[in-house]
Amino acid sequence: MPNPRLLLCALLPALIAFSATSAAAPEPTDESAKPLSVQQILDASPASDWRAPDPDNTLYMDLDAGRVVIELAPQFAPEHVANIRTLAKEGFWDGLSIYRSQDNFVVQFGDPTGDEATRKSLGGAKAHLPAEFERVDPALNFHALPDTDGWAPQVGFVDGFAAARDPATGTTWMAHCYGALGTGRDMAADSSNGAELYVVTGQSPRQLDRNITLVGRVIQGMPLLSVIRRGPEPMGMYDDPGQRTPIKAIRLASEVPAAERIQLELLRTDSATFDAVTEARRNRRDDWYKVPAGHIDLCNVPLPSRAPTVKP
Amino acid sequence: MPNPRLLLCALLPALIAFSATSAAAPEPTDESAKPLSVQQILDASPASDWRAPDPDNTLYMDLDAGRVVIELAPQFAPEHVANIRTLAKEGFWDGLSIYRSQDNFVVQFGDPTGDEATRKSLGGAKAHLPAEFERVDPALNFHALPDTDGWAPQVGFVDGFAAARDPATGTTWMAHCYGALGTGRDMAADSSNGAELYVVTGQSPRQLDRNITLVGRVIQGMPLLSVIRRGPEPMGMYDDPGQRTPIKAIRLASEVPAAERIQLELLRTDSATFDAVTEARRNRRDDWYKVPAGHIDLCNVPLPSRAPTVKP
Repeated sequence: MPNPRLLLCALLPALIAFSATSAAAPEPTDESAKPLSVQQILDASPASDWRAPDPDNTLYMDLDAGRVVIELAPQFAPEHVANIRTLAKEGFWDGLSIYRSQDNFVVQFGDPTGDEATRKSLGGAKAHLPAEFERVDPALNFHALPDTDGWAPQVGFVDGFAAARDPATGTTWMAHCYGALGTGRDMAADSSNGAELYVVTGQSPRQLDRNITLVGRVIQGMPLLSVIRRGPEPMGMYDDPGQRTPIKAIRLASEVPAAERIQLELLRTDSATFDAVTEARRNRRDDWYKVPAGHIDLCNVPLPSRAPTVKP
Repeated sequence: MPNPRLLLCALLPALIAFSATSAAAPEPTDESAKPLSVQQILDASPASDWRAPDPDNTLYMDLDAGRVVIELAPQFAPEHVANIRTLAKEGFWDGLSIYRSQDNFVVQFGDPTGDEATRKSLGGAKAHLPAEFERVDPALNFHALPDTDGWAPQVGFVDGFAAARDPATGTTWMAHCYGALGTGRDMAADSSNGAELYVVTGQSPRQLDRNITLVGRVIQGMPLLSVIRRGPEPMGMYDDPGQRTPIKAIRLASEVPAAERIQLELLRTDSATFDAVTEARRNRRDDWYKVPAGHIDLCNVPLPSRAPTVKP
């Protein structure tokens, strides 16, 4: 009988190994020729392949269960991000809640009050913003994947954010992958202002791409959001306020004392290390895998993070 | 300021509308030409487009939080399904647990005991089975999607199960979509026996396709599995048995008194209604969507179910 601990390990992504050889190459036969594991690739990476997120574009969402860390994407949604920064500085979300959790889709938070007269004031933030569904900006640092995608002509990453591009029109947009942060809107394209936010917790709903403004992604703490009990009402809503998840505070990291900030480094998605990690996942070369896929979906690409390495 | 209730509705998949017209067709301009919603399509479906799952191939997994209903796929994994039926009849999983919950990946259950001497006996079930990663069976009722897929030459559905196919080799295999049920294995391809099972709870890990035996899918109750708190140890394991989720029982529906069975009908995936629902999701034509995707991923296709309609 197989050892059940090994049965478990067999499904562990972190154990998946890597080889720079093509899918048609023969398996290595000696120990020295073994493909590097993802961890070995990361361990060998130069410090320059990592970056610390900008505290001015980092949000801390504090729940009773812990802290969710979000990186904002001003390169994609400058007006929404500016508004969100204002809302965070003024404590807009403090004391509000996650009022929706829909299975295999999103959690959503903000002020669920339908009556405008009693809704929480937006304070110094703007009530109306333009839609920021896509960008035409040659300065965007788009790092393309070679992999085909059914949703877009081209996919890749911009500064850590999963994105898609249409070379014919020169437009680039963020993609709805797990952990993406977006802004709820009404029927009009320009009806979002950043006060109502959602995070993708299910199978990538890419049909929303180019239909709604994405503003960032969760870089730490997804397990705090993904396990929130699904709301019993349609769309995963909770009519009973007592079932909602309270938000203690949402703050910009730059507004939090330096000693209380989360120290985190993210692998640069335009680095050789990132390419090597992605290839290790595209063609898995360890002994467990019998058929390497030869492909990776945009939303399956790992985005490694780590605690900062201390220099001696 | 937009009404936040509308902001929420805007993200509701069930409200998405449908049109049989092509992506290039002009938007309808009068009320009568409005595209049908998914619900309207389902409401207009003939009874013959629905089926009741076979109680002999349906599992009830009873947790403290409620019942998870699983449909087995003997057309893909006859030997594993036969073993699982034996294990269920003999109560193998009763009193065992979900001992792993890894964020954006899987939950896994069975007997986590590493020591073979103290592991739960497989009873009348076989300890060794052949790998059942893919099938060469012209009788499989493969209903192809027109949509491109990066993981496989062709994708579609077989009797409600998301699947992929390689016309060049004549092989068909089940796909790792949300809710797929698979069998843990060791390094050897033929080292699974159906006692250790996992359910996909995250972004479709399609790289596992053709590398492990899938045996069915969850047809009701995913929210009971998807919210299980992620295990604190590597791979989402719980070293503390008190943190695991107890399994009260796993039974074949056919072994449960008829009056206690879940009454459920599934939309046939080879029906015209299914094609219409899929098209409604591929090209969303309601007023909220500004850019219909013109594409749907295999793992985003909805698989509707309903309580049986009572005949007058």
